[in-house]
Parts: sequence; C-alpha cells; structure tokens
Amino acid sequence: MFDFTFYNPTRIHFGKDRMSALAKEIPADARVMILYGGGSVVRTGVLDQVKTILQGRHLSEFGGIEPNPTYETLSKAVEKVKADGTDYLLAVGGGSVIDGTKYIAAAALMEDDGWCILENRGRNIQRALPIGVVLTLAATGSEMNNGGVVTRAATHDKIGFSSLHCFPRFAVLDPTKTMTLPPRQIGNGVVDAFVHVMEQYLTYPVDAKVQDRFAEGLLLTLIEDGPRALATPDNYDVRANLMWTASLALNGLIGAGVPQDWATHMIGHEITALYGLDHAQTLAIVLPALLDIRREQKAAKLLQYAERVWGIHDGSEQEKITAAIAKTRAFFESLQVKTRLRDYGIDESAVPAILAQLERHGMTKLGEKREITLDISEQIVRGCC
Amino acid sequence: MFDFTFYNPTRIHFGKDRMSALAKEIPADARVMILYGGGSVVRTGVLDQVKTILQGRHLSEFGGIEPNPTYETLSKAVEKVKADGTDYLLAVGGGSVIDGTKYIAAAALMEDDGWCILENRGRNIQRALPIGVVLTLAATGSEMNNGGVVTRAATHDKIGFSSLHCFPRFAVLDPTKTMTLPPRQIGNGVVDAFVHVMEQYLTYPVDAKVQDRFAEGLLLTLIEDGPRALATPDNYDVRANLMWTASLALNGLIGAGVPQDWATHMIGHEITALYGLDHAQTLAIVLPALLDIRREQKAAKLLQYAERVWGIHDGSEQEKITAAIAKTRAFFESLQVKTRLRDYGIDESAVPAILAQLERHGMTKLGEKREITLDISEQIVRGCC
Repeated sequence: MFDFTFYNPTRIHFGKDRMSALAKEIPADARVMILYGGGSVVRTGVLDQVKTILQGRHLSEFGGIEPNPTYETLSKAVEKVKADGTDYLLAVGGGSVIDGTKYIAAAALMEDDGWCILENRGRNIQRALPIGVVLTLAATGSEMNNGGVVTRAATHDKIGFSSLHCFPRFAVLDPTKTMTLPPRQIGNGVVDAFVHVMEQYLTYPVDAKVQDRFAEGLLLTLIEDGPRALATPDNYDVRANLMWTASLALNGLIGAGVPQDWATHMIGHEITALYGLDHAQTLAIVLPALLDIRREQKAAKLLQYAERVWGIHDGSEQEKITAAIAKTRAFFESLQVKTRLRDYGIDESAVPAILAQLERHGMTKLGEKREITLDISEQIVRGCC
Repeated sequence: MFDFTFYNPTRIHFGKDRMSALAKEIPADARVMILYGGGSVVRTGVLDQVKTILQGRHLSEFGGIEPNPTYETLSKAVEKVKADGTDYLLAVGGGSVIDGTKYIAAAALMEDDGWCILENRGRNIQRALPIGVVLTLAATGSEMNNGGVVTRAATHDKIGFSSLHCFPRFAVLDPTKTMTLPPRQIGNGVVDAFVHVMEQYLTYPVDAKVQDRFAEGLLLTLIEDGPRALATPDNYDVRANLMWTASLALNGLIGAGVPQDWATHMIGHEITALYGLDHAQTLAIVLPALLDIRREQKAAKLLQYAERVWGIHDGSEQEKITAAIAKTRAFFESLQVKTRLRDYGIDESAVPAILAQLERHGMTKLGEKREITLDISEQIVRGCC
C-alpha cells in the first residue's frame, strides 16, 4: 500500500425528506446564491422546495449552468456573486452545477480572472466561499469531493482542478430527487461512477486489500442496480444504492494508498471538448479500448477484476481478460450508452484532432505509471473508432 | 436503506514516516499534553520520536492510562490539564488511550465532575479540547470516530459515550508502529475490528448493497491478513491492511443507513467490568453464542455472511448457518483468542452476576430490534460458558 492522506469533511444528509437540513446547515444571516442548471430543478419543483425551506433568508439565483460547465457562463456568475455580496453558494443539481459552483466559490474571492484556477489546476486557490449541495443526479461524486472540471468553450479546453478549500460543507442526498431523470442521464450516471472506480482500481496490485474490496463492492452494486434503475425507475432502494455508490466512487476513499490511472478521463475530456459528447459517453468509448491496449500492463488487476467482479473463472489468462473487457462493454451498452465513436457519427478523421488536443494540454504521459505516450494514446483512440 | 447522516472530519496521515505531520497539525503555540498508556511507547521509542518532532513546543505528559481506561485515572489527568492550562491533547497509543483522551478533552472543559458525561452517554458534551492521535495498535477504530468507553473501577461500570466534539482532528497511522506488539494484542485487535464490523452487518437486510459489500470486504481482509500478522510480524502490507481495516470498521461508514446490533459489546463490557478479561476476549466469547441464539432472527444475513465471507455454498440453510458460526469461532481461536468463559476460568456461577450488571445498566432491550430481553441475554451468556 502507498502512503496517503485521507480527509473528507463534507457532511452527508442522506435519505427521504432530508431537505430540511438546509435550514440548519446554512447560517441564518448568510447571503445565499442558489445555482442550478438548465431548468429541470424548476420543472421538478426542487428549486421551489429549496426556496420554501430558506424562506425569509437573503436569497439570489443563478440558473443556466450547462452540462460541462463553461468558463464563459461561470464568469457571469462570479460577477453576480461579487456584485451581490453573496457569501454562501448553494448548488442544486448534478455534477456540472456542483463543479461550476466550486469554481465560482474560488474565483469570486480572487482579484485575477478565474481562468488562472484552471491554468494552475486549483493549486493557487487560497480560499473559497462556503458551498452547500442539493444533489439531483447520482453520477460524478462532486457532492463529496474537492474537485471540478470546467470547459472554456471558445478554445475547446476542458480542464480539471481541485483544492482543499472546495469541499462542500454539506450535501443533501435524497434519492427520490433522481426518480424523474430521463434514461440517458441514468445510464450516463452509472457509467460515470463505474469508470471513476475503474480509474482507481484497474491499475496494478499494491496489496491494498480494503481499497480493492471496496472498489469491487461499488462495481458490483452498479452492475446489480444500474440496469434496475432503468427497468424500475420508482424503486427507492435502487436509487439509494446508486446515489451512495456514486458519492463513494470519488470521495477519495478507494483511491487512498493505491495507484490511479485517469487516462480514460483525459482522453474523454478531449472528445467532449471537440465533439460535444456527454462525459459518460466518452468514458464508455475510451475505457474498453484502453483496457484492451493496456491489457499486458494491467494484466494482474484485469484478472482480479474478471474473477471477483464478473465471476469469470474459466479459460486462459488472455481469454479471461478478453471476456472481462467484453463484459464491461456489454454492461455500458445495456445501460443504453454506446461504446464506439462511430455510434456517435464520428469517423477516423477524429484521431489526429484528439491527439492534437492531448498534446496541446500536455497530456503526453498518462496512466498510472505515466507510460501512455501520445503514440499509445493514438492506439487507444484508434481502438475507440 | 435507512436515512442517515454521515460526517467524519478526522484527517488521516497513513504510512511509513508520517510522524512529521505532527509538527504541522498541532499549532505552534499550543500547550500540548501527551497522553499514553503503560509504557510500551516509552520502550519502543515512539514517545521519544513524538517529543523530538515537537521539540521547543510547550509539552507536558500524562502516562499510565490503563487498558479499559478508568474514571479514577482519567480524573487525575483532567486535574492536570486544568492546572497546566493545556489546550491540545495528543494521544499516543491504542484505543484505551484515545478513548480516555476523548473523555479528558470533554471533562476538562466542564465545571461538573466528568462522570456526568458517562451518565449522559456524552449527550451533554458542549465542547472539547482538540485531540490529535498517534496510533500504535490497530483495533478499536477510536482514532477515526467520536466515541469512547470508560470504566469506573470502584463500581464496575463500563460505559460508552460519544459526541461530535470528540472526533480527533488528525491521526497518524504508521503501520510500522504496530510491529512490536505481542501476539495477544495482535489477535485481540483483529477480533475487535471483526466484531465491530459484525455488529453493523449481521442484523437483517435493508438492501444497503454498498454497506454490505464494504463490511464483507473488511471481514475478508481480516480473515486473510489477521493470521498473517501473527505468522509474519514484519510484513508491512499486512500491518497496513489491518490498520486501515480497523479504522474503517468503526468510523461510521459501514454503519450509515443500516440497522446495528451492539449486544455483543454490551454483554462483553459487563464481563470485562466483572472479571477483567480483555475487551476482545469478551467479544470472541459472546459473538458466536449470540449468533447461535439469534440464528432465526438473523437468518437472512447469516446466510449472506456464510456465502460471501466464508464461501459456504452447500447444505441446508441451517447447516450453512451452523457452519458460518463455527468458522467464526475457529477464526477467533486461530488468532489465539479463546471463545468460552471456561477457557478463562469462569464457570456458570458468572451467569447471574453478568445478568445483574446488565439490568443495573438498563441493558434490558438489546440488539438491532431491541428484542434481546434479559431472558434472551441469559440464554446467550449460558451459551458463552
């Protein structure tokens, strides 16, 4: 096991009817800005519920944070926060709204333009406004970690950042709030959480038994309950299991003390930045291709994954690995998330464009051992076609 | 899944050579009291190492906190804290030292005698001194939770308490510090962690898939690496896995959203209070007897445990349950922890004495459904003989 530091101070209020926690968590005299996305929280009534609970408080609103939140939109929110004297941010939505809110929380307290946060991957963040979360989508885990990803639309840059100052103070996780999601967002959420786990698990063994067992437990839960969320959208326990799994998939716990990969995410980010695919769609495309290209370097963990997660016990080592990768792809497809670039109307001409983006962003040594050069990334992207 | 709140702000510094974190974690101007136990940290040099790192700080010491820390001893520490103007407590040791330090941290800021903390199970704690931890024994999980257990020797009262104010600010978990432990403490530690998991897992199903998988992952790790710690005391990864497992066994995570039992602990506490057995010895005695007496009420989870943890797939349901309980007992015995009262020279005359203690402490409705009356406790204690 590697040495590690683990710290996660976010308070989770999980379950039905936990929204009332908002009233206690947010100081009575705070100047609160409620941030949300494209309007689904308006249609579902969640926004009204929040405002009712916070009635009599000093409230403002900023809606319209898009999927893959953009620097351009978030900069407007930063101006509004500064103009209003806002001192508490409440994100109501999924990962994009929460990621965007973390950026706003830090940028609002900076004199320089917030883009420097992304140039420094968050290392230059000295402080941030307090953040609360009402989660409406189980996927990214942003509700219980200190990271985010922001896109500059003008330049097709999609860049991650993190800072100890960006942990939400609290997050309300009410699984019933995810029951109105369309199938596409349900499938995407399960794929996103699954790949988060894989990026921290499917590397090479370091005899970190607990981290491995926990990762496998999350994967098994997603495999069991992901398809059930599509088949029986009203099943509370299914939604609860998926919601808690997605948070634990990326709250720092399973990645503490083990090697991490993240090449799938880095390549996926470029596909979204160039072609506008959903984040989870890019992950479903890249992961199977990457596992196949890196099957030799990842062999030990792929065999463990085959056996413990997919119950594959028969065949040669190569056959087991091939079967496990095929099961992974089939699982994503069963969630109605396609796993080839061509399924989204993108042909091989995309390969050089994606490679150029990786090079421009310095993504020339990816993976758990920094061994994925641009040449290997090219093989992976060709495998995505 | 039940609704829950999860919150755990303790910062973990895990690994070799993480002791230097002390210097950053403890404010430079703090008046620090170092608390420890019977002197093993003196013999192993850990205490000297701590003092070297904190050289030049305002330091005082309080040694001699005993296993099952007593109100009588801790009260002396409270007086010393008050007299010295101590404003930061650093526990160096295992669960008893940390539990005792939590009590001291709260009692030192009270005007009333600290015993009221135990009478109120900690609910009356309004504030506490900040606590840091250097862990030298993997067992209780106290380094990453907000609870403790204190014994009043004069009256044979062993009582637990908890408070949000009692989370350690940080804990240094260096697995190499556990390598000098005698086999008895290694075995006890594994049993303690194992039973902590079982108290939160072996109840009845509520479709909490992640909590179940995580609990099973911890149990499997203890089963794999517990005996290896006895056989190969110098294996770093084994010690690391046990240390992290013990912390995660009782940091609130696996118990969030699920029913919890704790009857084994309540009955075990009375055995320690009356006869002085090690805490883990009492757990190893009570758990198999309790599982056998409650096999009907716990049948669904016992079958899941038999299958997923012990790999028992054959036989009738009753045969599988019997086999799983037998495996549990054999596991404790393999760790050199005996599982019958008679192994410790205690005969059936103890039964009424233990029952009387339970009644005196109001332990008349124990277990995950509060169904374990004194009559059922009597059956369990008889099964312990």
